[in-house]
Amino acid sequence: MSLDALILTSLRAAGDGAVSGAQLSQELGVTRAAIWARIEDLRSLGYDIEASPHRGYRLLNAPDVLHADDLISRLGATQVIGRDIRVFQETTSTNDVIEKLARDGVKEGAVVFAESQTKGRGRLGRGWMSPAKRGLWFSVLLRPDLRPQEATRLTVASATALRRAIELQTGLKPEIKWPNDILIGGSKVAGILTELSAELDRVKYLILGIGVNVNLNPGDFPAELRKLATSLKAELGQPVSRPELAVAILRELDHDYARIDPGQFAALADEWEEHGATIGREVVIRTGDRQIRGRAESLGEDGELLLRTVHGHLERITGGDVALEK
Amino acid sequence: MSLDALILTSLRAAGDGAVSGAQLSQELGVTRAAIWARIEDLRSLGYDIEASPHRGYRLLNAPDVLHADDLISRLGATQVIGRDIRVFQETTSTNDVIEKLARDGVKEGAVVFAESQTKGRGRLGRGWMSPAKRGLWFSVLLRPDLRPQEATRLTVASATALRRAIELQTGLKPEIKWPNDILIGGSKVAGILTELSAELDRVKYLILGIGVNVNLNPGDFPAELRKLATSLKAELGQPVSRPELAVAILRELDHDYARIDPGQFAALADEWEEHGATIGREVVIRTGDRQIRGRAESLGEDGELLLRTVHGHLERITGGDVALEK
Repeated sequence: MSLDALILTSLRAAGDGAVSGAQLSQELGVTRAAIWARIEDLRSLGYDIEASPHRGYRLLNAPDVLHADDLISRLGATQVIGRDIRVFQETTSTNDVIEKLARDGVKEGAVVFAESQTKGRGRLGRGWMSPAKRGLWFSVLLRPDLRPQEATRLTVASATALRRAIELQTGLKPEIKWPNDILIGGSKVAGILTELSAELDRVKYLILGIGVNVNLNPGDFPAELRKLATSLKAELGQPVSRPELAVAILRELDHDYARIDPGQFAALADEWEEHGATIGREVVIRTGDRQIRGRAESLGEDGELLLRTVHGHLERITGGDVALEK
Repeated sequence: MSLDALILTSLRAAGDGAVSGAQLSQELGVTRAAIWARIEDLRSLGYDIEASPHRGYRLLNAPDVLHADDLISRLGATQVIGRDIRVFQETTSTNDVIEKLARDGVKEGAVVFAESQTKGRGRLGRGWMSPAKRGLWFSVLLRPDLRPQEATRLTVASATALRRAIELQTGLKPEIKWPNDILIGGSKVAGILTELSAELDRVKYLILGIGVNVNLNPGDFPAELRKLATSLKAELGQPVSRPELAVAILRELDHDYARIDPGQFAALADEWEEHGATIGREVVIRTGDRQIRGRAESLGEDGELLLRTVHGHLERITGGDVALEK
């Protein structure tokens, strides 16, 4: 961890109490002047840190910005995800950035956030609106030992984790629309874009691109999206702390990444189905120029959607656009 | 086409006849001096071009080098593959080069050759030996409208095309070992590495990396490969023209790329099976830490191998290492 992350970890551990400069200096093995310089820097980023000559330093408030050191400090120990976190003020797409890191051999679990994206990507070559500091736009690099056709399991795991993190942080009850949308009251509040680089029988790396509409106002959405999309702030009536939500999502992702294992996937799929807006519903699936109508029965063993068509066949659906009927 | 490609096309069209500088100048819309300069350049590359004041220019012989303009000239019109050909003297891996082109938006059908590769790649993270000017080491960029799990069809198409091109050029009778090896007399003479970049339900681009041991001598192979690998020259007892073979392969690839369509794939799979060293044989497949033994029955509809296990189950195999038993 960096010095900033270590200082923030100590201040948070002290809770309402304070930590003296002498104590920080000793714990972290740097001079008190170095501590003071870092505290000044954190303050300039918006961290409200009280410095009292008698008691020491106290963290009163953290700003709603994404600061890599702070995210690492808040996240604490994880199995895989989030040991390497990078934050960009602006990128084309965080998936592009992390793909470059992937090719450079960066370890799995690396996470790239951007305060804004100029070319945010949605599924099937579509765009994703990512206004500055209103949402969470980030990508996670994974190197699972999977065949490409098993990769749908990761969309199931990430949707489950994302849904649970939102519920934990906000108390809202999001639903999952297969394969990758998180809905509240039928409107999209978050989405996942899974991209992979593979040989025919081996995933080389996989990227989860996640977008969460956190504090967007209705006016932030273009007119054509206003009925289809929503934000956590709009649903809750008050803003949500983006760094807290970010950390909650990474923690749940780390937890569910371990559950894509064949032995544990059934329980994960059950949780998905319990909160799914798709299973048991009549749906229309558009994939390429094909359209399939039927009843969504369940998730298959690799996370594909099993659809009972009007002709009684069971179709394994691995992609496409799902429209829910009534 | 470049001026070099146009000149070579004219010279080849004239066959044993000659083409005058005046005629070339008029046809190609450049000065006779410009034609002369290009002819001099081609000569310096090893092209044996006779210049007679009375008759004009005549192509007596082309060198065994890969020259992008010449390859384009020889290839002529194709549907998709080879309209954009680039030749490097040395690269890490042609798959790396073409992947970069793919990300930059280059059209499908682009081909990158290298006279030698410093980090040639085989399947499953293995290396591929690519000594300078002894083989064909190249990659083809495709953007098929397929789901990732359908991509195996392209390995079938490329193996079929590669096998046929080698037979056409050499008269040898290569066999295909599923999924991606071309064998002569049981030894590997060529291989295909298929890599793809995809969303879960959509291939963004796919790269065929092809390596053909053309004119390697037995001593070019490391000792541990000498029993497993061979070259066309070793089998034929004489060298094979690499540019001629390259063009034949691109032409057959272009032909078979159109056959991955569901309506035509059955015929392609039949051709594959007819020349397969795998179908009807007892095989052992190693995939990850799993080992499956059975009889290879046929190709499935997406090019996967259908294996009848000793327990009588039919397994769909999409990857792994295939060992042929007796």
